[in-house]
Amino acid sequence: MTTSDKVELAVIGRQRPAVIEALSAEFTLHEVSLDDVAGSLGPAAERIRGALSNPMIGLSAATMDALPKLEITTLFGVGLERTDLVAARERGIVVTTTPVLYEDVADTAVVLAMDVARKITSGDRWVRAGKWAAGGQAASGKRFSGKRAGILGMGRIGRMLAKRLEAFDMEIAYYDPRPAPDVDYTLHPTSVELARESDFLFLCAAGGPGVGHVVDADTLAALGPEGIFVNVARGWLVDEAALVDVVTTGTIAGAGLDVFSDEPNVPAALVESENVVLLPHIASNTFETRDDMDRCVIENMRSWFSTGKAITPVPAPVQ
Amino acid sequence: MTTSDKVELAVIGRQRPAVIEALSAEFTLHEVSLDDVAGSLGPAAERIRGALSNPMIGLSAATMDALPKLEITTLFGVGLERTDLVAARERGIVVTTTPVLYEDVADTAVVLAMDVARKITSGDRWVRAGKWAAGGQAASGKRFSGKRAGILGMGRIGRMLAKRLEAFDMEIAYYDPRPAPDVDYTLHPTSVELARESDFLFLCAAGGPGVGHVVDADTLAALGPEGIFVNVARGWLVDEAALVDVVTTGTIAGAGLDVFSDEPNVPAALVESENVVLLPHIASNTFETRDDMDRCVIENMRSWFSTGKAITPVPAPVQ
Repeated sequence: MTTSDKVELAVIGRQRPAVIEALSAEFTLHEVSLDDVAGSLGPAAERIRGALSNPMIGLSAATMDALPKLEITTLFGVGLERTDLVAARERGIVVTTTPVLYEDVADTAVVLAMDVARKITSGDRWVRAGKWAAGGQAASGKRFSGKRAGILGMGRIGRMLAKRLEAFDMEIAYYDPRPAPDVDYTLHPTSVELARESDFLFLCAAGGPGVGHVVDADTLAALGPEGIFVNVARGWLVDEAALVDVVTTGTIAGAGLDVFSDEPNVPAALVESENVVLLPHIASNTFETRDDMDRCVIENMRSWFSTGKAITPVPAPVQ
Repeated sequence: MTTSDKVELAVIGRQRPAVIEALSAEFTLHEVSLDDVAGSLGPAAERIRGALSNPMIGLSAATMDALPKLEITTLFGVGLERTDLVAARERGIVVTTTPVLYEDVADTAVVLAMDVARKITSGDRWVRAGKWAAGGQAASGKRFSGKRAGILGMGRIGRMLAKRLEAFDMEIAYYDPRPAPDVDYTLHPTSVELARESDFLFLCAAGGPGVGHVVDADTLAALGPEGIFVNVARGWLVDEAALVDVVTTGTIAGAGLDVFSDEPNVPAALVESENVVLLPHIASNTFETRDDMDRCVIENMRSWFSTGKAITPVPAPVQ
């Protein structure tokens, strides 16, 4: 097979080396400039049949227009808010995700909540600064077990989180615009009412086009001065200015944040705060899960071009 | 009632202000120098009927000898390794602990393991240092859920830990010189064999007089380069020099440590390591639990001197 016989793929945004290496053996890959998809591809744009992207970049209708032969797009992750599913459906483009990361994200939610409550990261900082050896008295934390957990978004991650929190004897409640009929947890009518009845408020909601702030200033205020907020979803689902305000004024006790509105930038007031734990969007970033996600992307692409079937396609949106 | 009518208590080592305040209203309290118990009390030594201590100081036979009228000692905690229970039994001295802290300690074991595996504290450090904003690629962690947990010591903390880890779909095994007939977890015949079959090794054993290193160099080596060690028990139950060696050479992947051999001193090589999380002995240090422990000490003392019964006495050792 010569190079020109191979199916051609567009590589949109940062992709994992293992994926590039595996697919390069079977496909011809073209790196794409995000600023000028058609221009950076030149004549190859007309031949691209598959695209590799990730949820933070997604696939816009404009990019689809630039790639008229596009059949499939793989997203390295599960978020769909930057991929135009309606436009994809209209063009017959299959979109696949990597639905193998839920456990890691649920784990991250648990560890962030416990870390903030029990002062783990700040305690480590205190020990490393020599303050314990100098005779200081360690700060007390808040108990984690037995508290009230509020989960915003009872999807797959929310359910896995709830299962974990049950083992800590927590009372679990949730808010979801689509109530989950198969769970027994208390459903509150609004985010604000959930926050008011929670010691820990976990944001596990999916973002989507047109979704505004799921957590706004009122929700954070309702959480109260003993409350801890955890975000493993998306930064832009939270009013970040309000979050900075409630953390720095003590309106809430603290926050554990894996995601931010303008990554990789984190508001300076949070970087200076002792009451937060700040992660670089690593909720699904484990060797094991990234390997599983690699395989998922590779196998979707292989399967589509050998059998005409994707392995983990996103259902087409309801018309 | 004049001061001289009040029962007199010795205060041995640091005690919580709330305990001192509450008991001062009903008892006459005397602070004791640890170097010279009898000398620092003077004639009051002959009148002391109760003592407040903590597990890290305990109550020696020599101190009992210096307090001939001693009836009861409260320990603020649950460790008994520095209290001479045989000498207490011989003298008819009741020893009480505060068995209200197990959940917090089990929680700390979980968060330490997850924190090391998922690079939470080191990730926060990385974000705060501006390395994410500067365009760096975050380090991957290890998956926590679904792994193999080895628990050294299947007592109350070990059981609560196991319950929590089950919710993370972990395979649980243990080693305990006294096997627990009521649990279904796999029992290994030695610490080394448990370590060899574990991704996470949790030390939850009770210390006791004459107990040497429960975790030695061989056990740590058996854990291997992907293994993570967690200690929420006592620093002196581990060969700390061997621990420093395996962490700094990569013989194990990392460690989460709440306790050390010579607190508050932490080996410099650990302070400089990126693969450890270091806590200032806070496994039970939450506001809620410390309040419960305060009440437990206060109520034991009150109950003993009003009814002749302690609330949470330690069973006398078998002769």
